[in-house]
Amino acid sequence: MSETAMRLAILGAGGLGKAAVQIVSQKRSLHLVAICDSRGYAYNPSGLDVQAIMKLEPDQSLAGIPGDGKASTDSIGEIIKLGSSEIDGVLIALPNLPNEFIPGIIERFIEAGFETAFSDALKRTSAMEQMFRLTPTLKQVKSTYITGAGASPGLLTTAAVLAAQSYMEVEAVDIWWGVGISSWEEYKATVMEDIAHLPEYNLEKAEAMSDEDVERLLDARDGKLELHNMEHADDLLLELAGVVDSRDKVRVGGIIDTSNAKKPVSTTMTLTGKTYDGKTSSHRFILGDETCMAANVIGPALGYLKRARWLKDNGLYGIYGSSQFMPMMVG
Amino acid sequence: MSETAMRLAILGAGGLGKAAVQIVSQKRSLHLVAICDSRGYAYNPSGLDVQAIMKLEPDQSLAGIPGDGKASTDSIGEIIKLGSSEIDGVLIALPNLPNEFIPGIIERFIEAGFETAFSDALKRTSAMEQMFRLTPTLKQVKSTYITGAGASPGLLTTAAVLAAQSYMEVEAVDIWWGVGISSWEEYKATVMEDIAHLPEYNLEKAEAMSDEDVERLLDARDGKLELHNMEHADDLLLELAGVVDSRDKVRVGGIIDTSNAKKPVSTTMTLTGKTYDGKTSSHRFILGDETCMAANVIGPALGYLKRARWLKDNGLYGIYGSSQFMPMMVG
Repeated sequence: MSETAMRLAILGAGGLGKAAVQIVSQKRSLHLVAICDSRGYAYNPSGLDVQAIMKLEPDQSLAGIPGDGKASTDSIGEIIKLGSSEIDGVLIALPNLPNEFIPGIIERFIEAGFETAFSDALKRTSAMEQMFRLTPTLKQVKSTYITGAGASPGLLTTAAVLAAQSYMEVEAVDIWWGVGISSWEEYKATVMEDIAHLPEYNLEKAEAMSDEDVERLLDARDGKLELHNMEHADDLLLELAGVVDSRDKVRVGGIIDTSNAKKPVSTTMTLTGKTYDGKTSSHRFILGDETCMAANVIGPALGYLKRARWLKDNGLYGIYGSSQFMPMMVG
Repeated sequence: MSETAMRLAILGAGGLGKAAVQIVSQKRSLHLVAICDSRGYAYNPSGLDVQAIMKLEPDQSLAGIPGDGKASTDSIGEIIKLGSSEIDGVLIALPNLPNEFIPGIIERFIEAGFETAFSDALKRTSAMEQMFRLTPTLKQVKSTYITGAGASPGLLTTAAVLAAQSYMEVEAVDIWWGVGISSWEEYKATVMEDIAHLPEYNLEKAEAMSDEDVERLLDARDGKLELHNMEHADDLLLELAGVVDSRDKVRVGGIIDTSNAKKPVSTTMTLTGKTYDGKTSSHRFILGDETCMAANVIGPALGYLKRARWLKDNGLYGIYGSSQFMPMMVG
């Protein structure tokens, strides 16, 4: 552990949380000290044993980790109790079901006076609106939070802010993503959140589904979900950054294939605008097909967490959108 | 003029400087108060008449602007004399011939205690190294400077930092640009700097060429210059941001067609890396062919200037690379 390494807590140990553990284990400047799931948590100030976490069965709780694991009915409360003297940054890799789940957790951190840096991969506009309401209280406790720091919103939103620099007026931002996973169970929460975007579904309806319900739905669709006009906070973040004057200029959709790790389409952000000399054109940012969802969500989320810590260390507190700052490289 | 508009000075009135004037005239939050060329300058605290600047003949000095224009053999000295109480931001649109020209100008601002925000579109690595040596003195005078804030380095470099977030290790960053201009005289300084990158040329040799020499060279090459392995500060900026561990992983080249406004190739940044799960892949950022060089250089440079001002207003002084921050939208 280098002296300047960030002591990290990860909230959530599903598909994305586990991928985060793997990525963090390959980064010298990050030092995983705490992680929790709904049934327990693991903590070790000298660093958690990544292999022990990866060896857990898919349905086994972190409570089962020999030595460092403990069962708890309020594992997030346990992380909060550790205190900000033990944790330099918190990566939130929790599913946001229901919509007020993550904002509610942050309120608990604030109430406890927990002073740190946070990032999340929150997706829904309505959830992010709740997050931004926490600005004054986050400032009071001297915490800094970057929200929407995954792939979309996150990486692709920030690429749109960059692309917008060439234009006088932005006419449209189209985000069209492709995700391929070998089984839906690998990323249960992500798939549930995606189902909630289907025209005939919503968050409550998706949350109430059993595993068998989900499998029936996926089977009927050949394992694929094609989503259009998704409620994604790219619109709020691009409005906040001044890229669009109206949220309806931002359109997000995509295809997730839950039966094939190969992406069904290339994830692409296309920004169309008008230049100072009256030309209409489009800049594009295209993710390599071989990069999986976890690489494109967790990589940026950690880069933004480092930026959140930088902001905090420079006395800039409160909540920011991923569209407002560059993620930093995490070595 | 809105109360929060940035009072802007532009150094340089060549092709890029003139394009900057046009772009600034379409931005409500920027207020052009001063501009200079080698033979004179124009100043008006209530805002310069953009039409009067655009009406000047290509070879006519700003000194010829009725009312606001004045001849001077030290026009940059005249801008410095205006003082930082009159200017909120300085956009440097000067050719950097010779290599120490722009660093030398900034030293003059520093010596005068001029406290403001700056951005430039500097290209050469060796020139940018000189710029970074000014860090301590820029901090002393409470100025903030973002360097390499054009297209390459600038827009494309920052896209590389974003793209790198998905990868554990970056293997290569390839920037391949295309520029089309209807005549070389429109962007004389840019073409001269490009000629200096040809294998058999250097900055001194390019600087010594007459207009007839340049025309002969371009005619012999069908109006096109194809450049490989250019000395471009994208390498330094990506090393600084931690994207590459070695500058030779960054390659910059491109084609400029001086006889056709249509781009000969699409400007593309390709970043290739290895993911946490061992895959090799590439993210790409592609500029729309209809966007001209000026839109892609001056747009970002103004966005970074606004960011430099934001940093200064938050007490963060010194020099930063474009790879370290997001440009802000300029409304």
